Amino acid sequence: MAATSLTGFRIHPPGPRPDGPLLTAFRDVPTGQVCDAMDRLGALDWRIKPLSPESSLCGPALTVRTRPGDNLMVWKAVDVAQPGDVLVIATYEHTVTSTFGEFVARAAKAKGLAGIVCDGMCRDLSGIRASGLPTFVLGASPAAPGKDGPGEIGGRVSCGGIVVAPGDIVVGDEDGVVVVPLADAPAVAAALVGVRAKEARMQANQAAGRLIPEWVDTRLAELGCDVRVVKG
Amino acid sequence: MAATSLTGFRIHPPGPRPDGPLLTAFRDVPTGQVCDAMDRLGALDWRIKPLSPESSLCGPALTVRTRPGDNLMVWKAVDVAQPGDVLVIATYEHTVTSTFGEFVARAAKAKGLAGIVCDGMCRDLSGIRASGLPTFVLGASPAAPGKDGPGEIGGRVSCGGIVVAPGDIVVGDEDGVVVVPLADAPAVAAALVGVRAKEARMQANQAAGRLIPEWVDTRLAELGCDVRVVKG
Amino acid sequence: MAATSLTGFRIHPPGPRPDGPLLTAFRDVPTGQVCDAMDRLGALDWRIKPLSPESSLCGPALTVRTRPGDNLMVWKAVDVAQPGDVLVIATYEHTVTSTFGEFVARAAKAKGLAGIVCDGMCRDLSGIRASGLPTFVLGASPAAPGKDGPGEIGGRVSCGGIVVAPGDIVVGDEDGVVVVPLADAPAVAAALVGVRAKEARMQANQAAGRLIPEWVDTRLAELGCDVRVVKG
Amino acid sequence: MAATSLTGFRIHPPGPRPDGPLLTAFRDVPTGQVCDAMDRLGALDWRIKPLSPESSLCGPALTVRTRPGDNLMVWKAVDVAQPGDVLVIATYEHTVTSTFGEFVARAAKAKGLAGIVCDGMCRDLSGIRASGLPTFVLGASPAAPGKDGPGEIGGRVSCGGIVVAPGDIVVGDEDGVVVVPLADAPAVAAALVGVRAKEARMQANQAAGRLIPEWVDTRLAELGCDVRVVKG
Amino acid sequence: MAATSLTGFRIHPPGPRPDGPLLTAFRDVPTGQVCDAMDRLGALDWRIKPLSPESSLCGPALTVRTRPGDNLMVWKAVDVAQPGDVLVIATYEHTVTSTFGEFVARAAKAKGLAGIVCDGMCRDLSGIRASGLPTFVLGASPAAPGKDGPGEIGGRVSCGGIVVAPGDIVVGDEDGVVVVPLADAPAVAAALVGVRAKEARMQANQAAGRLIPEWVDTRLAELGCDVRVVKG
Amino acid sequence: MAATSLTGFRIHPPGPRPDGPLLTAFRDVPTGQVCDAMDRLGALDWRIKPLSPESSLCGPALTVRTRPGDNLMVWKAVDVAQPGDVLVIATYEHTVTSTFGEFVARAAKAKGLAGIVCDGMCRDLSGIRASGLPTFVLGASPAAPGKDGPGEIGGRVSCGGIVVAPGDIVVGDEDGVVVVPLADAPAVAAALVGVRAKEARMQANQAAGRLIPEWVDTRLAELGCDVRVVKG
Repeated sequence: MAATSLTGFRIHPPGPRPDGPLLTAFRDVPTGQVCDAMDRLGALDWRIKPLSPESSLCGPALTVRTRPGDNLMVWKAVDVAQPGDVLVIATYEHTVTSTFGEFVARAAKAKGLAGIVCDGMCRDLSGIRASGLPTFVLGASPAAPGKDGPGEIGGRVSCGGIVVAPGDIVVGDEDGVVVVPLADAPAVAAALVGVRAKEARMQANQAAGRLIPEWVDTRLAELGCDVRVVKG
Repeated sequence: MAATSLTGFRIHPPGPRPDGPLLTAFRDVPTGQVCDAMDRLGALDWRIKPLSPESSLCGPALTVRTRPGDNLMVWKAVDVAQPGDVLVIATYEHTVTSTFGEFVARAAKAKGLAGIVCDGMCRDLSGIRASGLPTFVLGASPAAPGKDGPGEIGGRVSCGGIVVAPGDIVVGDEDGVVVVPLADAPAVAAALVGVRAKEARMQANQAAGRLIPEWVDTRLAELGCDVRVVKG
Repeated sequence: MAATSLTGFRIHPPGPRPDGPLLTAFRDVPTGQVCDAMDRLGALDWRIKPLSPESSLCGPALTVRTRPGDNLMVWKAVDVAQPGDVLVIATYEHTVTSTFGEFVARAAKAKGLAGIVCDGMCRDLSGIRASGLPTFVLGASPAAPGKDGPGEIGGRVSCGGIVVAPGDIVVGDEDGVVVVPLADAPAVAAALVGVRAKEARMQANQAAGRLIPEWVDTRLAELGCDVRVVKG
Repeated sequence: MAATSLTGFRIHPPGPRPDGPLLTAFRDVPTGQVCDAMDRLGALDWRIKPLSPESSLCGPALTVRTRPGDNLMVWKAVDVAQPGDVLVIATYEHTVTSTFGEFVARAAKAKGLAGIVCDGMCRDLSGIRASGLPTFVLGASPAAPGKDGPGEIGGRVSCGGIVVAPGDIVVGDEDGVVVVPLADAPAVAAALVGVRAKEARMQANQAAGRLIPEWVDTRLAELGCDVRVVKG
Repeated sequence: MAATSLTGFRIHPPGPRPDGPLLTAFRDVPTGQVCDAMDRLGALDWRIKPLSPESSLCGPALTVRTRPGDNLMVWKAVDVAQPGDVLVIATYEHTVTSTFGEFVARAAKAKGLAGIVCDGMCRDLSGIRASGLPTFVLGASPAAPGKDGPGEIGGRVSCGGIVVAPGDIVVGDEDGVVVVPLADAPAVAAALVGVRAKEARMQANQAAGRLIPEWVDTRLAELGCDVRVVKG
Repeated sequence: MAATSLTGFRIHPPGPRPDGPLLTAFRDVPTGQVCDAMDRLGALDWRIKPLSPESSLCGPALTVRTRPGDNLMVWKAVDVAQPGDVLVIATYEHTVTSTFGEFVARAAKAKGLAGIVCDGMCRDLSGIRASGLPTFVLGASPAAPGKDGPGEIGGRVSCGGIVVAPGDIVVGDEDGVVVVPLADAPAVAAALVGVRAKEARMQANQAAGRLIPEWVDTRLAELGCDVRVVKG
């Protein structure tokens, strides 16, 4: 149950979070492998990218949803966040103003957050980079947000076309951001073993000169594609 | 817990649904009033509109998420749907092919569904209209989807930028579509009383020639805007 | 000089407006002819269209610029508008919430405004249509705006990619909306005579079976295109 | 070989065209069935729609590619078109100005063209509708194009994301537009028989109460989806 | 009054420009601070970014509006520009061809312009970078523009969704571009003092461990948000 | 004639390709010059850019068209490609999943391909960069494609809004990608001489202080623009 019943100005109390070993299973795993271990479709909108290509992050989501062009609730979310959290800010893909800047990034860094993921704009690019906080956004704009709300902290949000719930595991790297629902995380972690094994086989095959996987012709044949003639 | 553990090909078992009186509180309520009773931000992407302006719908969501350009799981969702459900299809805003057509619409109508909301394309516009099923989509394309999956039924989806969970109440009319989270529905229903009262006061004021609400000048004054000079 | 110096919450005092005869020169003129009499490029973003195809409007602009998703200043603009004005609302193409609805439209109609042009969303489609106010928008959404500002009334705005200043003449019909800068309006009105004469010649030529204008082959020849061979 | 070697101002001589019986095989066939008889992916961008829902067209393409915002070559294309042709205008999805209007439509109608398909804007909506020419466009704008080129007639173009070559068969109805490459047309026409038979079976099954196709559960089982539990 | 009365091919004579001290007040000021000193909304479309992150510019606008895909008037604008000007090119967001390339950039650099801001494409990326001219664009394309017009120099334009008039002060850095209307510039310059003071307080507070501004809880409480429970 | 008659699963046999001297004429030529030698309009969508700014490519196209979000046919295309080919992948601008990643890039590199151009997403950015294969894409996403088809190899495709046929010459650099139809390639190669001469004259003029080309005032005068007054 929410901390306050006023829809639009609610701070949901903290819910379940992944424990350390579960998080560890996803730390430094390429986002592509995480997608492969799920259903291949869990990536956020491809335009949400790190400010620095070498940035990566992994942590439980603390979600905040805000009126487009407003960051009152974003500030409060930093206030209630726990170390290691990834702040996931849903702005309805607002691009006319930024949703946060250097001060929010510095506060988040000082509190030990793992990073910020936002489907909108930041500002103070050089300041955010200097803060060292992994920051994944759609872009940047010098315009500033209002401080009027509404918004909610700790609820389910849609960010980059994907549902993110608080406690879901957020993994980000140069390729993009993927979200593992907390309830699915153990199964996905287990499936990562198979994903890695498959990649290793591919690498070994390619190293041995078998450049094209065998399943390609098999699958094409099943589908009725005559693959012979082009060889002649 | 899901009926099957295979991420990407799961059919979640039915969960809680709104009872009749709760649904009744939202039936034939303008979508704008429903938004006002929440936080003003719960509307799906504005481009999702009914095929016929006079269409409206109200019912609990049965969600289905599908690989873009595929409708294997959509067919299965119609199979497992209950009368009165609104099928909410999340396609990642796929526009290259349709996701359903006349046959899905006729099956849904025959099963007593309340309607379909989809963030993608339908096809067979005249056939769908003839079926009488309220249908809210982004548009139409003659191209057809594949039947390969993956997809999931009964999970949380992002549709039109909004989280929809199974059992959430979906309300649609000419203005668009709004989703009331099931847990919030009683409070939102209660708040509708105040929304209607406020609208009635506005109507009465306008009928009496008080065209501009009093709060306009009050709020502007609070914000430091000098509203006098322009009168002169 | 503005009524108040507070940037972002200003109501500029009324400036020059077109007189009656000048306005009359544009009334019921197809928007295409108005474009032809200028530089062919003065049309607003094509997606800004009337709610009803048969709607048309012509009048001096009263401009209002508003924070995306806010209509505090829109209400005030209706308050200070003069009969015959076209309210031109610049929202930075905001689509997540509506910027006005039936109550604003009814107030505008009661005050004798000529119509509303907005680069964003309205709501209450049936109510606005019932009001009889010509309304040109990008679309509709049931979500409601905030009442916090900032915004300005009577300044220059960018709406649909075109600069609109207060007093500019706004002409709208089924094809779209075109804006004639007030200072250019007399010259444009004069040029309309030539536009109409040219159209009349085209009609006469086509009625006489000369379907393709003579200048086509002339211009192609100038540009080095051999137009002979395809006739054989 | 082209009529002139000047790239950008060429009129390619007429090439092969479908004969009458081949065209007849596609006339009044729903566009969805044509897509099904190909690879399901041949539809133009879904936003290209008829001005009037009841419009339909079928004919060989006469292609024209034009600099965005220019219609010099469009006029010439009407001049060289043959009765029954569908003029396919590729504008690089230009939306700032129209590419044609009532006069082009009336000339095309007078010459017996089957219709116009354009990935850009028209103008004079009421005039084009009055001409009776089936017209499929992205939208309308009152702004007018230039007359400077470059452009080409009778070459291969990309329109709505699909390659169209002169002589390809263009089929359009309320659902959208599909293009059948001329070389594939006989095979596609033959495949239409199977498409219709499959649709008839679906109709019969649905009329008999078998609402969901049998292949749905079969395919899901192949893919490892447990479809039992949700029935309980 | 314009130099010529021909709408679409006009070169407006130079108007008022900011004097040196006024310009100095904005030089090397972060664009975010400039936005804060106005109404927070004056930033151009966020996609208009410098070719090199370290680029910055500050100067009075010389505006040019051009037919999409044409740069006849752009060349003339460089010709009439004065040292220190920022050339602001409005192309209606044209992306199919570039609007300028290395030669325009080199001419602008040689004439002492402060930079170019364009809502469209450039080309010759490496050449423009080598010229050293600060260049802010939407992107790059190798395709070249025509030389046919129409266009106008020195009028009011819409660029990146913002009105720019000649003489307005254009400030750009890595975060984006902001435009200060000339008439507002003294007041905005004065307001920058307060903006800087506020930023200094924020920095001091954060350095002292007060990471979240005090106004956050105050504002939330005003708005009815219960901020207590989440602390427990 | 195609290798198999099954529309949607076809591999067209190799057709004509440019010989070595013809290819050489385009190698290391800036894409802007190639556009100038054609009709200025042959560039792919500007968003298709190299992963590394210093990448460039030149080679005959091997085309592949694929269902959005699927790469079965992409793998087969690498299998049938010849050394020096540029793989041109048309995905209907699919952005929800990647279409290829490091393994495809490594196979392509090992087979001696000249590069990949794709109107969609790749993944494994660092791995692809490490492979050394010039790669031009719209962006990157960690999500993976399906392996179900349909698709075709060696047919005409629309990629980035441009028709690409197998054997067409694809040239790419930092500015973007341009495609020269094979039949036009000799004439375009010949025209490059004139393009280079014109550029050399421009450079010489600018070096001599003649910054603005003489044709500017000439053309403006032809078009009726009074260019005198602004000099005074």
